[in-house]
This record gives sequence, C-alpha cells and structure tokens, in this order.
Amino acid sequence: MRSYPAIRSSSFFHHRIFSRFRHTLSPMANSTEDSLRRALSDKQSTIDARGNAIRQLKSSGASKSEIDDAVKALNALKLEKVSIENQLKASTSGDTNGSVISRDAFRQAVVNTLERRLFYIPSFKIYRGVAGLYDYGPPGCAVKSNVLAFWRQHFVLEEDMLEVDCPCVTPEVVLKASGHVDKFTDLMVKDEKTGNCYRADHLLKDYCEDKPELKHVLAILDDLSAEQIGAKIKEYGIVAPDTKNHLSDPYPFNLMFQTQIGPSGASTGYMRPETAQGIFVNFRDLYYYNGNKLPFAAAQIGQAFRNEISPRQGLLRVREFTLAEIEHFVDPDDKSHPKYIEVSSLEFLMFPRDEQMSGQNAKKLCLGDAVSKGIVNNQTLAYFIGRVYLFLTRLGIDEKRLRFRQHLPNEMAHYAADCWDAEIESSYGWIECVGIADRSAYDLRAHTDKSGVALVAQEKFAEPKEVEKLVITPVKKELGLAFKGNQKMVVEALEAMNEKEAFDMKAALETQGEVQFEVCTLQKTVTIKKNMVSISKEKKKEHQRVFTPSVIEPSFGIGRIIYCLYEHSFYTRPSKGGDEQLNISRSLTAAGISNKKDITGTSIGKRYARTDELGVPFAVTVDSTSSVTIRERDSKDQIRVNVDEVAAVIKEVSEGRCTWADILQKYPAHSSVSADE
Amino acid sequence: MRSYPAIRSSSFFHHRIFSRFRHTLSPMANSTEDSLRRALSDKQSTIDARGNAIRQLKSSGASKSEIDDAVKALNALKLEKVSIENQLKASTSGDTNGSVISRDAFRQAVVNTLERRLFYIPSFKIYRGVAGLYDYGPPGCAVKSNVLAFWRQHFVLEEDMLEVDCPCVTPEVVLKASGHVDKFTDLMVKDEKTGNCYRADHLLKDYCEDKPELKHVLAILDDLSAEQIGAKIKEYGIVAPDTKNHLSDPYPFNLMFQTQIGPSGASTGYMRPETAQGIFVNFRDLYYYNGNKLPFAAAQIGQAFRNEISPRQGLLRVREFTLAEIEHFVDPDDKSHPKYIEVSSLEFLMFPRDEQMSGQNAKKLCLGDAVSKGIVNNQTLAYFIGRVYLFLTRLGIDEKRLRFRQHLPNEMAHYAADCWDAEIESSYGWIECVGIADRSAYDLRAHTDKSGVALVAQEKFAEPKEVEKLVITPVKKELGLAFKGNQKMVVEALEAMNEKEAFDMKAALETQGEVQFEVCTLQKTVTIKKNMVSISKEKKKEHQRVFTPSVIEPSFGIGRIIYCLYEHSFYTRPSKGGDEQLNISRSLTAAGISNKKDITGTSIGKRYARTDELGVPFAVTVDSTSSVTIRERDSKDQIRVNVDEVAAVIKEVSEGRCTWADILQKYPAHSSVSADE
Repeated sequence: MRSYPAIRSSSFFHHRIFSRFRHTLSPMANSTEDSLRRALSDKQSTIDARGNAIRQLKSSGASKSEIDDAVKALNALKLEKVSIENQLKASTSGDTNGSVISRDAFRQAVVNTLERRLFYIPSFKIYRGVAGLYDYGPPGCAVKSNVLAFWRQHFVLEEDMLEVDCPCVTPEVVLKASGHVDKFTDLMVKDEKTGNCYRADHLLKDYCEDKPELKHVLAILDDLSAEQIGAKIKEYGIVAPDTKNHLSDPYPFNLMFQTQIGPSGASTGYMRPETAQGIFVNFRDLYYYNGNKLPFAAAQIGQAFRNEISPRQGLLRVREFTLAEIEHFVDPDDKSHPKYIEVSSLEFLMFPRDEQMSGQNAKKLCLGDAVSKGIVNNQTLAYFIGRVYLFLTRLGIDEKRLRFRQHLPNEMAHYAADCWDAEIESSYGWIECVGIADRSAYDLRAHTDKSGVALVAQEKFAEPKEVEKLVITPVKKELGLAFKGNQKMVVEALEAMNEKEAFDMKAALETQGEVQFEVCTLQKTVTIKKNMVSISKEKKKEHQRVFTPSVIEPSFGIGRIIYCLYEHSFYTRPSKGGDEQLNISRSLTAAGISNKKDITGTSIGKRYARTDELGVPFAVTVDSTSSVTIRERDSKDQIRVNVDEVAAVIKEVSEGRCTWADILQKYPAHSSVSADE
Repeated sequence: MRSYPAIRSSSFFHHRIFSRFRHTLSPMANSTEDSLRRALSDKQSTIDARGNAIRQLKSSGASKSEIDDAVKALNALKLEKVSIENQLKASTSGDTNGSVISRDAFRQAVVNTLERRLFYIPSFKIYRGVAGLYDYGPPGCAVKSNVLAFWRQHFVLEEDMLEVDCPCVTPEVVLKASGHVDKFTDLMVKDEKTGNCYRADHLLKDYCEDKPELKHVLAILDDLSAEQIGAKIKEYGIVAPDTKNHLSDPYPFNLMFQTQIGPSGASTGYMRPETAQGIFVNFRDLYYYNGNKLPFAAAQIGQAFRNEISPRQGLLRVREFTLAEIEHFVDPDDKSHPKYIEVSSLEFLMFPRDEQMSGQNAKKLCLGDAVSKGIVNNQTLAYFIGRVYLFLTRLGIDEKRLRFRQHLPNEMAHYAADCWDAEIESSYGWIECVGIADRSAYDLRAHTDKSGVALVAQEKFAEPKEVEKLVITPVKKELGLAFKGNQKMVVEALEAMNEKEAFDMKAALETQGEVQFEVCTLQKTVTIKKNMVSISKEKKKEHQRVFTPSVIEPSFGIGRIIYCLYEHSFYTRPSKGGDEQLNISRSLTAAGISNKKDITGTSIGKRYARTDELGVPFAVTVDSTSSVTIRERDSKDQIRVNVDEVAAVIKEVSEGRCTWADILQKYPAHSSVSADE
C-alpha cells in the first residue's frame, strides 16, 4: 500500500491562541545573533539581581512607594528583555545555509515539479482558484495516505491510543469555552475606499523589512497591540499596497470560518480551527472507556480550517489542512512515563531556551540528560519528543535538518508548563511542523467551567488516607457586625489564607486577642478579633483524590511535514543535459509498490524521464510476452526478468529484503535503450 | 492494521440535486404492492397505445387542436403513472422481514450497544449535543479506517484510479455551476410566532401516516410543489407540532452550510455537499496526467456536509459524513469495459425498473444477462455494479439482504442515462448505501459553460478521416430583407435542420423555387426562396474527434455502509442469563489483529463480557510468565499457549490461514474460568 510521496502544506497548526507566533523570515548574520544572545543573557542577570533587591526591600519594611518604583523599573527591564528575545527569535527563524537567492531558486524548482506532476494542484484552478486552498493530486494523495498510515501505526497502534473522529462543524459554545471565539484573531486593516483587507502586521513588516533603521520594529512585531501597530502605520505613512489609499485602524478579525447550524439562524457554528477540542469534550467517556485509568492518550486525524486574511508562504500557510493531534492525559502529580527508558538514550539536535538566550546554537543532546538536568520539564513530555523524533526521521526527514526548539518564555501560553517545537529546515527557514506542549489542566478546566460537567479523574486509594486539613471558619455574624457591607470580602480574604498565614493569625489571636489583617480587595488593613474566626486542623479520611488531569499535546501539521519531506528528498541527478530536475530521491520512494501503467505513445526515453520525475523507482518495460525489462531509476541499470518473477523481484528489493546490487548479479543485464539520458 | 468494526451514519450521499428521493418508511402489505405493480403495468400499456395514436394523428395531418387535446390527455395519463410509481416506491422502501415493533427493538439494542461501547458518540455531548452530528469513538474509528483502507485497495489500487483530495471549503461559483446553489434545497415551514423550522414534507407525512384515507398523499409526496404542499397544510389544518401555532407557507431552504472565504465578506463559500465537484473541476489536469487517454477514473474520500432542516433517522441522516466517490470518465460512443468479463458471470439480487413496475420482486440475475438484455445500460455501468457487489459482500454485508435497484424514470435526473442503487436491508428498511449512475456529460458540460475552460477529450485518428458534412448556409442579406426582425430566428431554424429535412428542402427549392417552412420559435410558417439558403454536402478531412466524456459515478455513503454492516453483524448469543446482547459477529472481527489491554480490576468474567461485546474475537489472559490463555469468543473455548507463540497463533487464525478447530487440536485446552457466562 505504501508508495511515493509529495506535497501540500497545512497551515500553522502550532500557533495556538494566546501564543500565536509567526516566522519573520528576515535573514540575520550569526554575529547579530550572538550579540543578541549575549545581550539577553546580560539582561536576565540584571533582572535577577533587581528581583532579589526588591525581595530585600520588602522584607526590610521599605515604604510602599519605594517598592512600587523598584517594581516599575524591573518591569521596564523585562520589556527590554522581551524585545531582545523577539529579535533573537526573528534571527533564529531565518538561519539557513546558503543565500536567499539560491533558496528561492531551489524552492521554485521543487514547487514547479510538484505542480507539474500533480503532487498538488491549486484548488478550483479553472475558476482561477482560491488563495490558500490546494488539492492533493494522485501522487500527493498516495503520499498523504502513506504518511497518515505510518502515523497511525507509530502512534495510535504502538501506543494503544484511543482514536476518535469528530465533525468539523462545531457549535459556538465549544469554541467559546476554548477561547477561540474571543481570541483566535489576527489584526486587520481595510483600504478605506475599496474595502480590501490586509494583515496589519504583514504591511508593517513589508515596510520595515528593507529599512535597516527599522529592524528593531520587526523584532517586536508579534508583541505590538492593535493601537501600537495602528500608530506605526500612521507614523510611517503606510498605505494600501494595491491602491495607495489610506488604511483603517487595525482591528481583530476572527480566523474561524463561521456558519449557521440548522435553518433557524439562531445557532452559530464554526469550522473547527483544530481537532483537539473534539477530544477534550469527550474526556469523560474516553476516561471511562479506558477503565477509569490514567494515563491514556486520545488521537485524532482530520481537517482543520483557518480563514487567513491573506495567505502567503504558498503551501505552508493555507486555509484548510490536515492535522493529526494527540492529547495525552496524565496525573499532574506523576508525569513519569513507563516507556521513557525506550527513548531516554536518543541523541538529536535540541535547542533549549537557555542556549537560545545565551548565544549558542542547537546542539546534540541526550534526551535523558535533558530531563535529568531539568531542561525538559518531565518524562512524558520527553517521551513524546523522542517519539516525534523517531517518527520524523523514520519518515525520511534529514536528522541534520531537524531540531527541537524550546519555546522562549514569551512564546508560551501562561498556563503551559513547557513547550517544544519540532522544527524542520526548509527553503523557508526553520519551520515548526510539530508542536509538543504540556498544556497543564487548562483545556479540561475550561470545558468543565462552561459545560458544568466535571472533566476530572479520580485516584482511588488502596485504603482510606487520613489527611490533616486546614479548616478556617469565619464567624459571619461577628464579621457582619464589624464590617457591614465589606463582610464578604473579609470572609474571602480569611478563607484564602495559606496554612502558615492561618496559623500565624491563630497564634497572634491567642496571645494578643486581635490582629491587623490586610484585605487586598478592600485595599486596606482591618482588625480581626478572636471571636471572628476559628482556625484549626482536622483529620479526615479520604477515599480518593479528585483532580483535573494535565494534557500533553503533540500536534502534527501533516501538510508541512510532507512539504519538508519533499524538499529533503528533492535532488537533481547530474546529467549531460545540465540542470533538469529529473528525480526525487530514494528515501521517498523506497516504500513504493504502487504502480502506474504508462500507455502513452511517447518514446521510452521520455517515459523513463517522466517516471523518474515522479520518483518511481522501478520501470517495467513489457517488450515481449515471456520476459520484461526492469530499469532501476538511480543507476539506470536494466535487467531482463521472466514475466512470472517481476512482482516478486520488485517486492523484494522495494521492501529492502535485498539490494539492487543483489538483483543485478542474479539477472542478465539488458542493453540500455537511451533517449536523452 | 485491520481490526474490529463499528458505526456512525453518513447522511444521504445519493440524493443528488434534481432527483432527491427520500425513503417513506410506511410499511405496506405485499398484496398492495402487487396490485400497484399491475396498475402501473396497465397504465404503461395505455400510455404506449396513446403515444402511437398521437404519432398517427400527426402523420395523417390532423388539426393542431386535435393533436393538442390528445397530448393533454396523454400527459394526464403520465401524471397518474407517476403517482402509481410513487406509491410503489413507498411500498418497496418499506418492505422488510418481521414486524415494525421487533425491528425497532432490534435497532434499539444495536444502537444502545454502539453508544455504550463508544462505537459512536453524539458529538459535543457535554454541551447537550447538536442534532445530526456524531463522533466515531475508538472502536468505530478502527472500523472506519479499515473500511476505507479496503475501499482504497478494492477500487483505487486494483483499478488504477487517480485519487485526489480537495478542500471542503468551496467557492460559490463552483456550486453555482453544478446547480447546488439554486437547487439543493428542501421545503421548509416556520412557526409563525416562534420562528421554529420544520421540513414541510415531514409535517405532511407525519399527519397523513396514521390516516388510511390519506395514504395516497404519502405516495406523491416527493412530487408535490411548494404551493401544493402549502395548500395541503392549510387544507388539513396542520400546525407547528411543538406550539400548535400557525405555519408559514413552504419555501425552499438551501441545505449547504454557507460561509465567507477571506475577511472581506465579498466571497461566499460553502462546505461541499459532495466530493464529486472537486474531481470534475480537475478533469483537464487529470486527463493530461493519464496521458490524454480515456477511459480513466478519479476517486476521492472525504467529508461532505448537508445542513439538514431537522435530522431524523438517527445515524442515517446526519449533517456531516464521509463520502467515497468515483468518477469514471468514458467515451460516450464506447462504454465497453476491458475488465467487464471479470464480473459478467456474477449473480445477485437485482430489481430492474420493469420488475418494480410489473409487480415482481427483486430476483437473482446474472449481470452479463442484464447487460445483453439491455436492462443495464452499458458494460461500464455493469462493471461498477459488479465491483460494488464484490466490495460490499467481501466487507461482510449479507448478500441476501443486498439488492441493486434501478431508478424508476421519475427518480432519475433528466440527463442521466441509467442509475442503480445498492440497497442494504436494515431495521430502517432498504437503505441506499451506494448510488451508481451514468450521469452522461452533464457535469463536465456545466463546468465548461461556467468556467470557459473546455473540459473535453480528443480522439486522435490514426490517419485523417474524410467525412461528409452537411453544410447549411443561410444567405443573411436576403433573409434580412424578407424577414426583418425575425431574421435571426429563421436563420437558427434553418441551421437546426437535420440532414433529411435539409435535402428535402434542397430538392423542393430546386424543383419549385420556394418552400413553406415552419419556424417553431415564431410559431408560424414562412416562405423560403431559393436565393435565401444554400445546402450542400462537403467532404472534410478530420484529424481528431473532440467530445465531452460521459461520467459513470459510484458514490458510497461510508457511514451508512458501516451502520448496515453493523446491523448485519449484530447477534445475541443464546445464554443462560437470557437476552443480553453479548456479541458482534465474526464477519466484522475476522480482520482484527488490533489489540487492547484490559487492566481494569474487574473479574475475568466481566472482562470477557466486555471484550465479547466489542467484538474482540480472541482474549489473551496473562496468568503466568511462560504461557497464557487464549479464549475464542464464539465458542468460549480456552487453550494454553506459550507466550512466544501467542502473536503467531492469533495472526494465523485471524487471517484465515487456519481455523480455530485446527488450533484447538494443536494446543492443550484450559479449564474455563466462568463468571456470568
């Protein structure tokens, strides 16, 4: 069933809401990168020192205004750090081998071949197409099907995952809970006269890109607010590129395709922007299906949709794409993984946060060391990083052009514990193709809150556990008399005390009868008397622990992986003719036993050239009823084989049970029919 | 990779626009059916006789009014025939074995098991779901994946089809060309106060169903216009079922999910209602890819969407579903098929139009005979009918509950040459699961007209052919002088003459100098003189023939097939306990080597019961480090096997290389651990 591979890109699977991050492809010299890393490192030291100073100020009882000033200065430093981080990000994204020009030429050669041979087709071409939509043609389809079959084998079957298949049409409430309805946006500006739409950051980026004095703007682009981008557009006098008309202020445009479910017009729906939500909302059933045991993983392969404002980057940013996502649910108190040992000795290119910030490059690390040194947050996250590495390299990605880059602090969502991107180097630079994130309990909590259905797990204790619990009981009657309308906030502040604070208060009340207590929500200090609160520790028997599982999410952009695979596999066979792109390498085609009859009337040489370009490894020429010619693509060797043996020979060599050299020794050579070769 | 199967329905893939046909499930006695068939047969004889009479009237020079009256009477007869056909359709759709009550109970048992074991899950359940949307849970996903892999093997690979994969988001122009924007509608009524929406035909059907005196309305339901349904709703005083409020007049509601592509709001798009259009618009590239040769087939598997007004029939009519469609392009002048011989001796249940109309039942026919007798229109259509039969029966569909029913004349689109549905008997009656239609050149012509891109094929002649061509050259100057403003219509009428008419005119003009000529578009007869037109035959050399290919389209509703497979495979093992549904049969599970560890703490008996219900054929109990127990589901036999041998034994027996009986003889029996069995 496996055959030869191809291309079409998925859009950006990784830029989850809250931490959208887009490549700025501006190439930067390594010296710039190094100096940025040093600057970042310096800045971090300063920040650390200032942080310590503030803690000392606080403990030494400095005045509020003094502390406030120090905090303000610290925040300014942090902002400067963010700016450097962003410059660095722009720099590392753009680092590639070779010049921009040769990259572009190479990409053009790849894309031309792909389109000419129908690996992909711009969708609805006879109607002049739609930006950001592509079809997989026949060879592209075969590749996609193989990649997905391998993914299913490597993850779903080998890891005993629970696969689900949910609809693309999704009701609003689900995406309201996940945050997509409110926050899955890009900033847009409109041509004030024609109404044409543009991405605000793209226009600003295009304007700044060829102006060395504005390089610093590129670096902070992703962190600018709508107002800040609008101000810069005005400041630089940026106008609509097509008409030179004035532009509107930037405003957020939601990237989801909206529709109506049912005929009434009262039920808004969206085409899902990711497949993950379908898994989260099924957590309860899946947990039960798994025998109420953690950990377990659910997986889904399917279409996702993003209504990009103006798709660019060809096959890498599209409006509809195939995602393959895994949600691994795990006890937040135990993120060990039973099969961790199987990946812990793997070594590959990793690019931890500290290395990025201190001017170093990605380097080979042992995954186990990265965990034991605390670079990778936990075993389960590391396990998936290792499995993704194996998946991509077994698929045919060049391991020298694959790195795992840790998110910088400002790239990560606030709730994420750690996040690594599998980045593959292509003519576009380093491309995120898989995101592997520890998303903590965020998603399940969001749906629990919105639906009222508790998406939790239970750990049943073998025998009931006796636990000591802090019990704070505000005496509401006394508090009401003392604080009237403020009673509620005082009660909440009392209940929010941690164990130390509570027992400090208990001790003070017992010795002094009353105590000063700061109520933040009232912004003042009140006097608490002994009769207003009782504080104690009680022993309770607990039979189980109820908790919201953490989610570790590896998310694969299938189209991007295929595109990178394609670039890594594209090569030009040296030939007399010069620089024709005749070929697609063996790494893609080794899997193939699919076949295609070529009954066109053209010359045998042209037919070989055509199959070569498609990446077909063996061509069988039927020129007699008893025996045929088999031609191997790379060597162009030809042998004579009996008709009965053809299938067996090709199966043997394409499945790697013997080499072409073995075959050559076994069968008589055929004198080559040469055309343009 | 193959494992055990499950369920979730697709909506109705077959009811193409222009010929939407929905099951009316009202059960009818066979005697009614027989009498309807006789009535239909009688009516057809009368119509044939009247038709002949009219032809005689015309040739005998009868007056226009006399002919008009005869035509009117004939049309009335045809309408009566349509009504009988519809009653018959309602009848045959409902014919099943067993009573309605036991069917419902059976279905409930099936659906309960499916839902409990997560074969499918109502989507977004924690938010109280969305009508017509279902998830495939883990076992359902495994089944779907297997069915699709088998489909790809059976059709795409074995038939050398060109697979493509196009986006779901589709721009309006494409679906305007295909007719979906204008005609893909259901009639809807609204509650005048609340705005609740209902399908007009459903309300009318519900009202008539339990009223024997209104049975005739059910029969003609599908042919009623909006006005006619509205009139009946008023006549019967039908009100909104939920509120008893008055209803609006019926109006068409388009069943496509609408959205906007890009941010401007100026580009309407729809979620595709079928995958076929993606293939048609790529015809030119695919034809080129195939070396400019016909015939060839393209195939696509993917999601399709229909925004049903009020989804009913559970898993059989849903709003999002997986289609697998084939478009086989063929020369309209040569619909032979090179592999026809491979299916022509197949025998299975067929239900040709004449048998439906003459009171007979579906009967076993030899496919080859059906072609040679002209029952099936052509070899290629027959080839696909045969391949679909093989696909479904190899998949596990009971061949006694599978029939191929030919469309009645009023079910077919006007452009279709012939159409057969693979219908599978389920608790819902006979369900269309695959439609196999010869759609002639309709689709390619529609996109050629709309896009201006010629979607045509060329037949190059081995050597130029000399052809005689009729050349009619109206002399426009003379015609203009004679007919002024009517000139254009006279010219068109002259050019539209066939060879006989043209040479009759030529002869008349040469002998009489002028001739009377009826111009239909002017509704009058004009005098044509010799100088107004020249008529001749010219010899031309033609190098090729350019034509629009015909399309033969097998279209598979994957969810429906899986659901029927599920019903056919569901059985209840007789047990002491009584009527538990413990089991899903071997036909579904024979394929399985997927496995699932059950590490729950429940008793071994409960665990066996659970795996039985999931359809797992072999349970391996690890109760020692050296050997294990393998238990076969149906017999409940248990054997002891060395740990090393387990995989090989299960693979052997599950892939059919040996039987369980063979295995039993080879390995020692294990004394049964019995729980509730």
